Amino acid sequence: MNFSKRIIAMQESPIRKLVPFAENAKRQGKKVYHLNIGQPDIETPENFMDAVRKFDEKVLKYSLSQGIPELIDAISTYYKKYDMDFDKDEILITNGGSEALLFVLIALCDDGDEIVVPEPFYTNYNGFSAAVGVNVIPITTNASEGFHLPSRDVIEKAITPRTRAILLSNPGNPTGVVYTKEEVNLIAEISKANNLFIISDEVYREFVYDGLEYTSFGNIPGVEDRVVIVDSVSKRFSACGARIGAVISKNKELMKQILKLCQGRLCCPTLDQVGAVELYNVTEDYFNAVLEEYEKRRNIVHAGLTAIPGVICEKPTGAFYVIAKLPVVDAEEFVIWLLKDFDLNGETVMLAPAEGFYGTPGLGKDEARIAYILNEDDLRKSMEILKVALEKYPNKK
Amino acid sequence: MNFSKRIIAMQESPIRKLVPFAENAKRQGKKVYHLNIGQPDIETPENFMDAVRKFDEKVLKYSLSQGIPELIDAISTYYKKYDMDFDKDEILITNGGSEALLFVLIALCDDGDEIVVPEPFYTNYNGFSAAVGVNVIPITTNASEGFHLPSRDVIEKAITPRTRAILLSNPGNPTGVVYTKEEVNLIAEISKANNLFIISDEVYREFVYDGLEYTSFGNIPGVEDRVVIVDSVSKRFSACGARIGAVISKNKELMKQILKLCQGRLCCPTLDQVGAVELYNVTEDYFNAVLEEYEKRRNIVHAGLTAIPGVICEKPTGAFYVIAKLPVVDAEEFVIWLLKDFDLNGETVMLAPAEGFYGTPGLGKDEARIAYILNEDDLRKSMEILKVALEKYPNKK
Repeated sequence: MNFSKRIIAMQESPIRKLVPFAENAKRQGKKVYHLNIGQPDIETPENFMDAVRKFDEKVLKYSLSQGIPELIDAISTYYKKYDMDFDKDEILITNGGSEALLFVLIALCDDGDEIVVPEPFYTNYNGFSAAVGVNVIPITTNASEGFHLPSRDVIEKAITPRTRAILLSNPGNPTGVVYTKEEVNLIAEISKANNLFIISDEVYREFVYDGLEYTSFGNIPGVEDRVVIVDSVSKRFSACGARIGAVISKNKELMKQILKLCQGRLCCPTLDQVGAVELYNVTEDYFNAVLEEYEKRRNIVHAGLTAIPGVICEKPTGAFYVIAKLPVVDAEEFVIWLLKDFDLNGETVMLAPAEGFYGTPGLGKDEARIAYILNEDDLRKSMEILKVALEKYPNKK
Repeated sequence: MNFSKRIIAMQESPIRKLVPFAENAKRQGKKVYHLNIGQPDIETPENFMDAVRKFDEKVLKYSLSQGIPELIDAISTYYKKYDMDFDKDEILITNGGSEALLFVLIALCDDGDEIVVPEPFYTNYNGFSAAVGVNVIPITTNASEGFHLPSRDVIEKAITPRTRAILLSNPGNPTGVVYTKEEVNLIAEISKANNLFIISDEVYREFVYDGLEYTSFGNIPGVEDRVVIVDSVSKRFSACGARIGAVISKNKELMKQILKLCQGRLCCPTLDQVGAVELYNVTEDYFNAVLEEYEKRRNIVHAGLTAIPGVICEKPTGAFYVIAKLPVVDAEEFVIWLLKDFDLNGETVMLAPAEGFYGTPGLGKDEARIAYILNEDDLRKSMEILKVALEKYPNKK
């Protein structure tokens, strides 16, 4: 009884596969600070649950395949703030950003087609692509350059007749990079010259620090037909468990095609959509407070990391991740050691080894992604624990 | 800017594409009795919303990719009632039965592989298969034989070296057939002889009438490794909008592979899982009352249909659908006419033309699926409307 080649080719989540080690550590009574996953501790705005609790229909029915009109309206209004004007039929609600991405890949690519993605990238890009037979062609970016894009030449070398799209996350998971307006324009130019789509994962749109300007691909004239935005409430409103995302594009014909996939899976959960509508009614104060909190955390983690001998990391400017080069031979072994063989007063930290974020074999072996999604005290403690651990770790470079 | 061949090959939902005609009819003030979709009017057990309303965590977090343990336990316990014993790692929670099916197809089939499916079949089988490059090979079943399976010879003729699985829904959507123990055993034998998986869509398990015996593929010894059950709370508990389904199989290696897909999309909605746990705590009285209600409805619809001259339909024994042969040239044209050009005292009915439920071109053109998901009075009225409509319809056979 064998399985499909594509499922075999799909790697196990490099983030989730170490979970059993963490569970074991906890069973032994260790406290584990989880810096390995993008699950923020920020409270979900209460109006989500308020709206859900008020739901009083007697039958929990299917909703419309494209999403409930109130949520589509709310998202359309939200985008106006960013000078983007999307009609109702240019927004489709999905089961998280994950389903949005899966649907876009299916709609654009056949088996054996390619997408070009700057690496390190969100590991599930790899997973989804493998699941539907799409090949991810990586363009390497480097910690020492803050993970900014290479030159046009280098990017275009990755493009072949089978390339269908360039996929980027901006702000970047796992890199924390925020692409400059020039970089966004460069990608737009390349997509026009090579007749490609741009799949822009902008779920971290609000998480941009140091007062940097943020440019969405939705703001670039001349590529409206090529741009597909993947969006989600998960990070924006700390509502990861709602699983409400969206595909957004001014290419109406593409949206009609993706609607067929939406109809195939009938609809997104009704209650979570009802709650998500209210999330979009939070005030600017909410975003400002959250941004301030994350910027503080970013500073703590960056200061903590750069104070550890041998650790290399540029200051990230977006999302809530940083990739750090560690003075170890193998970051995955180090993380397992942190969980199995180390503690500082009964406490340890968990990071995400970065090798799984690269498409090019061998890269990222000594790197880890750190998500700064804990409160200030916990982050300070985590950095202290990491420092001591790296002093004691036997298998250093 | 062209799209993938697979998305172009995917047909628009034949059920949902007529929705604009119904909306238009309603705008003109017509009342439309919807017999076209499987959205029951039965109330969702209140304990679903009770549990959801009690949820009081401050952060709506990701849940485990495989599903929350309480729900997996509840489903495992539910299956014991049917003499099926599934371990925790043999159940994965999915976004509805839809995602369960999509994941199973990806895990078993590569691009160009085939699955054998008795037709008429649930149209989305076609949709999902097209989306991931899998070819559906139909085995025709007939209204006059109550949509029971043909002989072993006929079924095996559809099998090629690229066939990976036989997919069935039992009880059947759209046919209402309940396969006999002999038929279930026959499929089991064929799957062994040809080294195939059996994907059994059993979301209508409770909807079996006339005291008939129901045999799940999970009850057949010797094929445990080949059987994958697709399940859902949608119909069982009239909770379609919760989007909570499951993949269930004793093939642990397969479940490990599908878990990778679950991890890729992170998790199912947290709140809906919390509510779904409580659904599984309803008493036997709930199922008995629902069954009695649907059996009554089935009888009304069957009596109503057979009283219309020229309509042919066998009495269905399961699910809540019936396929009727109508005395019209083209059932889709008839349904559009019902919505656009006909009413009886301001009321009309909407059916699902059955052509889209067939894989073989030309079949089902004069058939429609009727879902008996309205109360008795509405169903009686609907049958009366249909009768008068068929008297007046100009384009009859």
